[in-house]
Amino acid sequence: MPLETPPGYRALDEGSLAGFLSSIPGVAERLGGDPAGWKVAEVGDGNLNLVFLVDGPAGAVCVKQALPYLRLVGEGWPLGLQRAYFEQLAMKTHGPLVGPRIPHLIHYDPALYAIVMEKLSPHIIMRRGMVAGTVYPHFADHIADHLARSLFGTSDLALPAAEKKRLTAEFCGNSELCKLTEDVIFTDPYMVHPRNRWTSPQLDATAARVRGDTEWKLAASRLKLKFLASPEALLHGDLHTGSVMVTEEDTRVIDPEFAFFGPMGFDVGAVLGNLLLNYFAQDGHAAEPDGRAAYQDWVLETVERVWTLFEARFLALWRGGATGDAYPASLFADGDGVRALEAERRAYMARLLADSLGFAGAKMTRRILGIAHNIDLEWIADADRRALCETRCLTLARRLMVEAGSFAGIADVTAAARDVRAAVKNIGL
Amino acid sequence: MPLETPPGYRALDEGSLAGFLSSIPGVAERLGGDPAGWKVAEVGDGNLNLVFLVDGPAGAVCVKQALPYLRLVGEGWPLGLQRAYFEQLAMKTHGPLVGPRIPHLIHYDPALYAIVMEKLSPHIIMRRGMVAGTVYPHFADHIADHLARSLFGTSDLALPAAEKKRLTAEFCGNSELCKLTEDVIFTDPYMVHPRNRWTSPQLDATAARVRGDTEWKLAASRLKLKFLASPEALLHGDLHTGSVMVTEEDTRVIDPEFAFFGPMGFDVGAVLGNLLLNYFAQDGHAAEPDGRAAYQDWVLETVERVWTLFEARFLALWRGGATGDAYPASLFADGDGVRALEAERRAYMARLLADSLGFAGAKMTRRILGIAHNIDLEWIADADRRALCETRCLTLARRLMVEAGSFAGIADVTAAARDVRAAVKNIGL
Repeated sequence: MPLETPPGYRALDEGSLAGFLSSIPGVAERLGGDPAGWKVAEVGDGNLNLVFLVDGPAGAVCVKQALPYLRLVGEGWPLGLQRAYFEQLAMKTHGPLVGPRIPHLIHYDPALYAIVMEKLSPHIIMRRGMVAGTVYPHFADHIADHLARSLFGTSDLALPAAEKKRLTAEFCGNSELCKLTEDVIFTDPYMVHPRNRWTSPQLDATAARVRGDTEWKLAASRLKLKFLASPEALLHGDLHTGSVMVTEEDTRVIDPEFAFFGPMGFDVGAVLGNLLLNYFAQDGHAAEPDGRAAYQDWVLETVERVWTLFEARFLALWRGGATGDAYPASLFADGDGVRALEAERRAYMARLLADSLGFAGAKMTRRILGIAHNIDLEWIADADRRALCETRCLTLARRLMVEAGSFAGIADVTAAARDVRAAVKNIGL
Repeated sequence: MPLETPPGYRALDEGSLAGFLSSIPGVAERLGGDPAGWKVAEVGDGNLNLVFLVDGPAGAVCVKQALPYLRLVGEGWPLGLQRAYFEQLAMKTHGPLVGPRIPHLIHYDPALYAIVMEKLSPHIIMRRGMVAGTVYPHFADHIADHLARSLFGTSDLALPAAEKKRLTAEFCGNSELCKLTEDVIFTDPYMVHPRNRWTSPQLDATAARVRGDTEWKLAASRLKLKFLASPEALLHGDLHTGSVMVTEEDTRVIDPEFAFFGPMGFDVGAVLGNLLLNYFAQDGHAAEPDGRAAYQDWVLETVERVWTLFEARFLALWRGGATGDAYPASLFADGDGVRALEAERRAYMARLLADSLGFAGAKMTRRILGIAHNIDLEWIADADRRALCETRCLTLARRLMVEAGSFAGIADVTAAARDVRAAVKNIGL
């Protein structure tokens, strides 16, 4: 039985798409030629949506439409269509701050919950490129800039309080997708739950050990509370390497349907955690031992550069553009005040690094023990080899979550990753 | 020139009140007799509103109406009427949680921005009673219970995330009154501002010293950031002893027009800070040296009991009714988990005490150096004597704000208050 949907909603398909698009001012001109001749392909490989790429003689667009259920599971898990509204609202809110780092938004259809945007070409999903071992020399620079601008620009450091409260209130409406994160990242992996899966039987005992690890579960619960009640900035909310499209020259952040006001470390940690997960996964893809060593060096260098560049840019934005209500600059105008405020900014970033590492660990753990896995690890065909990579991931993840504050800087994190890779030779925690 | 108001709004007066009330179902019956015979008195001594007490032969009501400006200053400082909407919404939200601790809400008129509620009698404003040296033996018990129930019950420990986000979003609309707090408590007292005043010339040098005290200003700014972006629970938002009406037997919390989702410590700290301020002010009201010593002992004992009882009740609610999404009980069901979760609860309360002390210090400081003073200190006619009490207040306030984390328990706070009273013999920091 199909799920009930609002009047006017219908799932688009390759046959109906040209008709829909030609009704939108400007889109027919952008694509050019006869709508009947437009090439339409449904390419959605995500879990929640239909995605169409449409090519005409003059140009191309991408159409993303929300489905009324979680596609990964099917109609058994209904999911509100309004997430498309929040996705386009996030694009409109972050767009002026981050400029070319997100696709250009062309149109939003509120009845169809469909977003028409620039088609990115020849971009591919970054996760696929990383599994193949492709280096993206500009990624660290681009994503650090994106993170700094999107997070600083929607924080109390940049926004007047009333404007931030207005935006926060709007995004509170996206509670259904927040709840999904709360459950599948911070809760389910730490308990017996039918949605969980892992490499079995290799990690059966490990999964049980995690479920009995009180310190780990407390760390997850503290992060969950932070996720629930720390609206520091407008987050992307799902910023893993599957939400990034890349070429060797360009980087674009897509799919902000989980957007809401939350702790900045959740976005930063999503990037760092997915890079670290890929670092460990490379050993499952190498043709010979250490066959991906150079790539792994690049991944860890990227981890370091993402944080270092993010921190520098965030601090620069703060020093130069503190237009928000937090830390009024006029209170710290004299020499002593300027020095003290700078020390405060450093302490703020140290706290944000600890938050980011904790969330990074949570993102790594859920990809191994929870519902949603990813190809970095899933494409390792040999289950023993995969389980060893996953054991290393979990070893570092636990340390990032339980001891987040003990890492003095990002270099300590990459050193710990190398140590774990060298030290862990057996499957299972 | 009168300020523009929405269609349908008119300021009520003693002449028009009976007509308004008799149009509300049930109110005429409650008051009884002929509306022309109802006794109406405007008694508002606050800064923001008209307050009418209406007595009929069968009963009485209180009517509170928002004015479109800050009454303390006059029409030169316009203030949105919608704060009345948030006040009644807070009463409706807290009401089922706290029961008899707030007045019964009878009616809300959205066009007049007027709240009709139970008339409290023979209650008086607690601050007046405390200035007169009246002991309220049940206050600590009552206010601790109110704080625990209102804060726990609207937190992520008790509410499902979607419900908490829905409420948070609504109260984000009260940003104008939040901004007032952000300015007059956390910002203005620490800078040169025409709204500030203090006992002059006695505290001129002190006010200047505070404006140059970088550590103090950083502490105020950290608290401000917490106020801006920590929606832990639905706060009253202005819970000083002027927002409490008492008899020796009863305690009622009134005037939640500043209500919003913020850090719990702001409400707890408002209570503690105003008690501590009264403790120091008593020396200005004593007929002879140490003439109020017994009362001062009671005030400090009340400070201790408010925190101790609040902590015990909050913990009991958490242990017995953790129906929210934070710290899922099922993750901590075994013996080790139960113990660890209890330790986590204790750590949570320790953090909350530190928050509360910081906010208490901020509330004390603003009453001496900012726009809004109160009668505990203002009614000390001798300016030198007042300035000495104020110096002691500021001495403790700075310590509470800058060293909040160094107080291991509430007994350390009352000990520090006694020390400050004994040690500070001269006017000025």
